[in-house]
Amino acid sequence: MSIITLLTDFGTKDGFSATMKGVIWSIDPTIQIADISHEITPQNVLEGAIALWRAAPFYPSGTVHIAVVDPGVGTHRRPMAARLGGHYFVGPDNGLFTPLIEDGRRAGTSIEFVALDNPKYWLPDVSHTFHGRDIFAPCGAHLAHGVALRDLGTTFADPVLLAMPQPEKTPGGYRAHIKVVDAFGNLTTDLPAELLNGRQVRVQIKGYTINALSPSYGHHPAGAIVSLIDSEGYLEVAVVNGSGAKTLGAVVGDPVDVEFLN
Amino acid sequence: MSIITLLTDFGTKDGFSATMKGVIWSIDPTIQIADISHEITPQNVLEGAIALWRAAPFYPSGTVHIAVVDPGVGTHRRPMAARLGGHYFVGPDNGLFTPLIEDGRRAGTSIEFVALDNPKYWLPDVSHTFHGRDIFAPCGAHLAHGVALRDLGTTFADPVLLAMPQPEKTPGGYRAHIKVVDAFGNLTTDLPAELLNGRQVRVQIKGYTINALSPSYGHHPAGAIVSLIDSEGYLEVAVVNGSGAKTLGAVVGDPVDVEFLN
Amino acid sequence: MSIITLLTDFGTKDGFSATMKGVIWSIDPTIQIADISHEITPQNVLEGAIALWRAAPFYPSGTVHIAVVDPGVGTHRRPMAARLGGHYFVGPDNGLFTPLIEDGRRAGTSIEFVALDNPKYWLPDVSHTFHGRDIFAPCGAHLAHGVALRDLGTTFADPVLLAMPQPEKTPGGYRAHIKVVDAFGNLTTDLPAELLNGRQVRVQIKGYTINALSPSYGHHPAGAIVSLIDSEGYLEVAVVNGSGAKTLGAVVGDPVDVEFLN
Repeated sequence: MSIITLLTDFGTKDGFSATMKGVIWSIDPTIQIADISHEITPQNVLEGAIALWRAAPFYPSGTVHIAVVDPGVGTHRRPMAARLGGHYFVGPDNGLFTPLIEDGRRAGTSIEFVALDNPKYWLPDVSHTFHGRDIFAPCGAHLAHGVALRDLGTTFADPVLLAMPQPEKTPGGYRAHIKVVDAFGNLTTDLPAELLNGRQVRVQIKGYTINALSPSYGHHPAGAIVSLIDSEGYLEVAVVNGSGAKTLGAVVGDPVDVEFLN
Repeated sequence: MSIITLLTDFGTKDGFSATMKGVIWSIDPTIQIADISHEITPQNVLEGAIALWRAAPFYPSGTVHIAVVDPGVGTHRRPMAARLGGHYFVGPDNGLFTPLIEDGRRAGTSIEFVALDNPKYWLPDVSHTFHGRDIFAPCGAHLAHGVALRDLGTTFADPVLLAMPQPEKTPGGYRAHIKVVDAFGNLTTDLPAELLNGRQVRVQIKGYTINALSPSYGHHPAGAIVSLIDSEGYLEVAVVNGSGAKTLGAVVGDPVDVEFLN
Repeated sequence: MSIITLLTDFGTKDGFSATMKGVIWSIDPTIQIADISHEITPQNVLEGAIALWRAAPFYPSGTVHIAVVDPGVGTHRRPMAARLGGHYFVGPDNGLFTPLIEDGRRAGTSIEFVALDNPKYWLPDVSHTFHGRDIFAPCGAHLAHGVALRDLGTTFADPVLLAMPQPEKTPGGYRAHIKVVDAFGNLTTDLPAELLNGRQVRVQIKGYTINALSPSYGHHPAGAIVSLIDSEGYLEVAVVNGSGAKTLGAVVGDPVDVEFLN
């Protein structure tokens, strides 16, 4: 039984993602479909890239991930598909797959890229404004149904990559940056736990100081500002049973300074 | 493998649509279910009708579409099912299926209507306020599971039809109207591209003038007000990487004047 | 074909529930998954308990319901699974299953509780902040895939139970309380219809008086304040085609006084 995931900035009110599901099930009605998110901030490719990178690795090998955050739809940006190890990715070539490609390259994963230039696998009529429906959904469904990646188009080697946020080394530690604000208002940074090496740290953000890492939210009273390692292995700042974003007035990109204490 | 789609104004917080899925899977746990939308503005039958009309045709023949925007629940309005060609529709007889019925009639599609008056296919206890759960979900599931349409009740010929927005002919072109504001703030009108016949046009909306149609959003800089043909083949006004609704202060029903230039 | 439902307070933007689906389908890709809600107010265990209680009974026997509203994640609160008759429930032992357990005990249903302390059925690495992904999703998927409940851990008998809102007897009737405000703004109370015994009542809420129960919304003009029995069999106050919550300024916990007239 094949699996497709969908990630878009289409919202959930208008039925656009459901239209994609109809196209997919018209090609193979046995495919399992999961929505990763349809609430990516419109046209925010980086936010979509991070959400996809967080969820996709937990799917089984063979899953096809269709992602459409596509401000350049209808222009010359390339529709693409990629294979990263056993996972397939389908969407615009605009950087949406950057952190997954970077992780794959670091890990020595086998990687292929194909431009979706074979109209045999598109819908018969391709609009200028809805490639999610007309190109990405049918190409992804054909992939999940067993069509070979290379049948979908021409291989290429140079996908567009975003500049992902990176922590900066400082004399006494690191300057990290808020990478994601999640639905709880938790503030995830770009600093991976490996860089902390298990050392004790002081964390400063928006004028607040947090003197240690906590194992989880529940170890402190409601309202406490805590720093911890999040479930993807990155430094996070949170307010227990509250919103870090609201309490601290913090937004994506804000600096988070980490100072080693030992 | 049978497919059911759901469209309601129930929202996604309270679990009402999930209750319908439980009823469906209690009848046949192999049915694939897609949510078209649960965020139709409460009691806005026209908005629901347009969202269903946009998505349903992309599903394969045999799909059962259950739609519940139902301000008259518990009164004498008729619960109904329809077959339009190979697609089935289940919901209140209040106009929700109007544009699909009109398209079907125009295309000479085979059409049948049945009042859901056979309690054999309802839940044993029917509430006065949740026919989505008690009548529409079980009837739709039985249809998807193979029960014949006519077994669900009595045929009839006169479904309630809404007055759909229509463009008006003007001396130099058409007065269209905003039909839908989507999640991006794009403004879709009731003017089908066929009426433009490929001619050059000037578009006026809320005091703004757009001097040509664009092929897609990406051909203009962010913030530009553009007019184009949307992915369903209708005239649309949009702001590139922004919200047409917010920028123009436009709402459903506002006029959009189209003047032929050649 | 096995069924899993998911209920969380994770929101639908970040992809956290989709991560759980990936974990589930990595264990068994044939499982059907329905979202009950991911929009429970963060950390509001009571609200989650009521939404789960409303939807879960409509699923077929054998369904596994995974629910994660979990302010104590990473602390000593127990991860648990329960069998109530033919339904399985997986989540934190913090009261989320209270009304289902209470209904089961009242009905004499066979009930078992197991602490999820067998790491064989967890993901290999368990984070301190995302047990939905690392413990509840895999344990639920193994249950749905056929693992016996008792293989998941140690049985116990004393699950945490919430104090559920209860109506108070008054000299002339009952003082009920608003238990849920749904997406329409309808105000459901904690007063079951059985307690009214079919008698005529006057309902008072926030200074408004409603002199009778109505069979449904559609029997009154738009804007009318009505009281009726909701689709779960409880007293509800609503505004026809409007929001009771907004019109009355009512919130969860507000009293609703019911006076018998005969």
